[in-house]
Amino acid sequence: MITVILGTGPGLGAALVRQFTGQGHTVVAMARRKDFLDSLCEEEAKKGGKIIGVPCDASKPESIKDAFAQIPKSDKVGCLIYNASAPFRPASILDTTPEEMEAAWKATCLGALVASQAILPGMVAQGYGTILFTGATASIRGSAKMSALAVPKFGVRALAQSIAREFGPQGIHASHILVDGVIDTEKTRQYLGDKPIPQDSLLSPSAMAQVYWQLYAQDRSVWTQELDIRPFVEKF
Amino acid sequence: MITVILGTGPGLGAALVRQFTGQGHTVVAMARRKDFLDSLCEEEAKKGGKIIGVPCDASKPESIKDAFAQIPKSDKVGCLIYNASAPFRPASILDTTPEEMEAAWKATCLGALVASQAILPGMVAQGYGTILFTGATASIRGSAKMSALAVPKFGVRALAQSIAREFGPQGIHASHILVDGVIDTEKTRQYLGDKPIPQDSLLSPSAMAQVYWQLYAQDRSVWTQELDIRPFVEKF
Amino acid sequence: MITVILGTGPGLGAALVRQFTGQGHTVVAMARRKDFLDSLCEEEAKKGGKIIGVPCDASKPESIKDAFAQIPKSDKVGCLIYNASAPFRPASILDTTPEEMEAAWKATCLGALVASQAILPGMVAQGYGTILFTGATASIRGSAKMSALAVPKFGVRALAQSIAREFGPQGIHASHILVDGVIDTEKTRQYLGDKPIPQDSLLSPSAMAQVYWQLYAQDRSVWTQELDIRPFVEKF
Amino acid sequence: MITVILGTGPGLGAALVRQFTGQGHTVVAMARRKDFLDSLCEEEAKKGGKIIGVPCDASKPESIKDAFAQIPKSDKVGCLIYNASAPFRPASILDTTPEEMEAAWKATCLGALVASQAILPGMVAQGYGTILFTGATASIRGSAKMSALAVPKFGVRALAQSIAREFGPQGIHASHILVDGVIDTEKTRQYLGDKPIPQDSLLSPSAMAQVYWQLYAQDRSVWTQELDIRPFVEKF
Repeated sequence: MITVILGTGPGLGAALVRQFTGQGHTVVAMARRKDFLDSLCEEEAKKGGKIIGVPCDASKPESIKDAFAQIPKSDKVGCLIYNASAPFRPASILDTTPEEMEAAWKATCLGALVASQAILPGMVAQGYGTILFTGATASIRGSAKMSALAVPKFGVRALAQSIAREFGPQGIHASHILVDGVIDTEKTRQYLGDKPIPQDSLLSPSAMAQVYWQLYAQDRSVWTQELDIRPFVEKF
Repeated sequence: MITVILGTGPGLGAALVRQFTGQGHTVVAMARRKDFLDSLCEEEAKKGGKIIGVPCDASKPESIKDAFAQIPKSDKVGCLIYNASAPFRPASILDTTPEEMEAAWKATCLGALVASQAILPGMVAQGYGTILFTGATASIRGSAKMSALAVPKFGVRALAQSIAREFGPQGIHASHILVDGVIDTEKTRQYLGDKPIPQDSLLSPSAMAQVYWQLYAQDRSVWTQELDIRPFVEKF
Repeated sequence: MITVILGTGPGLGAALVRQFTGQGHTVVAMARRKDFLDSLCEEEAKKGGKIIGVPCDASKPESIKDAFAQIPKSDKVGCLIYNASAPFRPASILDTTPEEMEAAWKATCLGALVASQAILPGMVAQGYGTILFTGATASIRGSAKMSALAVPKFGVRALAQSIAREFGPQGIHASHILVDGVIDTEKTRQYLGDKPIPQDSLLSPSAMAQVYWQLYAQDRSVWTQELDIRPFVEKF
Repeated sequence: MITVILGTGPGLGAALVRQFTGQGHTVVAMARRKDFLDSLCEEEAKKGGKIIGVPCDASKPESIKDAFAQIPKSDKVGCLIYNASAPFRPASILDTTPEEMEAAWKATCLGALVASQAILPGMVAQGYGTILFTGATASIRGSAKMSALAVPKFGVRALAQSIAREFGPQGIHASHILVDGVIDTEKTRQYLGDKPIPQDSLLSPSAMAQVYWQLYAQDRSVWTQELDIRPFVEKF
């Protein structure tokens, strides 16, 4: 079985790769950074994980189409995980240029449409398949200075619901994961510096990846279309 | 006082023009269709309504900027109503091209950002102002075959919330109106043909416009950020 | 036209009385405190407002039934406002006794059912009528230490929706008002003491009452089933 | 480890018992029907499952307190599942007596408070524990003729949120499961009679129970507070 993951940077993306190869899936890992893709492939090669690295720029529909054309035809695609999003910095509405908003929307939301369109016909033909979308608190709440994250993320949620409602009865499971909190990555820890980090107060990427796997593996009589995940100490 | 209305086609847009000129506001009416703008201006001229028609294509940031540059400086802008959206036809995810999605998003959502950015600095300077966004059921529900409406409309809702939270304490009232149902327009009635239309089963544009006015006129100690409106017989 | 208001203490209740008598309605004001009812009646008498004070304990179904039996039959009841709720203090789940929870639920939620049942048959017979329910932030958010408010208030919201969906097509407008913030009452100001209170940072009861009136007066082609109201500086 | 399940009728309750004993937990199974409890205990005894049957009437706080007093002190309680609810038939608001509403609320909602209060102090002392609440579509939507289900179920959701927010930082995981659809039980199949039942169109109790187990087993850095589950063909 093939799982396609678009957005496999360090952190959640890499953990998803490990989770799904660990379960025997062939992972087609897509990301912009070729060097990080290479290191992921090397890591998997060492432990016998099946992985194919494909460079892809989620903000460009053509790049997504090219990347999806490289998915091997020899096996079925059971799962697509859309984990890409534009880089984001909080900014006033007045400091968010239309160009920035558009770029954010393309990488986060339009790319999710293009990737879904590339994968759905095959899933429909085989009668099953799972598409998982990484969301955020900003998917359901437009906070001050967060518009360039919230606008695209709200959009992805709309898309996930539309796909779930149109394709669910054809056996396609679309699910949206509301990630609330900060993911525990090297970058996060560098950023937090000497600040004490209570145990389990950051989202563990491998624990997150397990949740994604459980959604993929759900019996189709009990599909989850949306769930939230957050550290036990997270205010919400 | 000036009210800017972007999206003044027949139906809700025209009713908003009538409501706000009727209350003594100078309305700057923006729409793509020059001919309809002209007829609106003529109608208002006859009854002494103050109106300025400005052609504007909501899907083009530059066109919005140009249009907003034509707002007279002689008076204050008390209200902006973003009522523009792209034409929409229900379609499968698979029949919604990235180009269509992008065009829909630009006219419906990106335009709302650009218009808000054009009007906010003045409102902040004067310490008050109201921005009203026309939403839809598709703003909170991604139905099957509705993605090209839902994705942009979810985005507008995110934007409205971001503006409300950032600028509320500075005296700017951002509010989002969830329109649920079919608006009573000539076009609607043509489309429905001989089908019987029970009284008040379609949204009356003038009654809608009154709700918008009430939101504009709300005391700032009791601001509404979101409300729904639907005909009494509408299923929801 | 008669408007019945259950829960007419100082603050919002009294402002609702003033708003609806000011519009020419005969108000049947129901509250537990006979002395305050008397002072309201006296106040209205002086300015020619039509009011009937009826003592009522919202936590007791029999008391509600008795009170509603005293509504004059000589006129039609156009509006019921359920504004009663139990007194509340934040408390841990562990310090909220089942008895307290039950008492809170009865006054806030069960009473709303009983009052609605008393008024609906007449409204259905005449083919119109409005029922307004006072909600709170706690109607949509179960915060820490707020369970004895949130459990009943969530319940009232469920009830408002059930009534709206069952009786809407029969011409009955049920609407739920999410009050977010602190109401400006004498008690509030005493409680806040010397703390500076920025202008309009507390919900003005008379401005709130105007919103209730607008909901009552809504054209049935544009009914609002839910809206929020909060001061412009309120965090949300 | 002990798991307490309140509401262990045939269907979901029995499947939860099997899931948690299958994972080595000692299950304290509570239900009103002594005969069904006995048959569950017998079944578990045969395969070596650890189970203790305790009769309990969820609509009576005293009965819950008595039942919880019988939980063995020799082991720790890791999980409480509140799966009890009152029997329900759709009915008009006008045909739902206050007595019925109160009875429904007590078994479905007040019981959830009482059970949580009985279990929380021990969980707080040990620094961990999970409380799972069975919800329904009626937890977030007050449909016509569903008030006697929706009012209590909305209330349980408020309670789950209050507990999650108060006790999360103390290591207690409260989660609410929105069950949308019809559970596949013998009773359901009898009721549906000769109607064809497409495969997986009813919620499989054992698949549901697996979701509950996954929530129990979640790493505390990625807790889910709410998720929905529904069959792939379910309209939503």
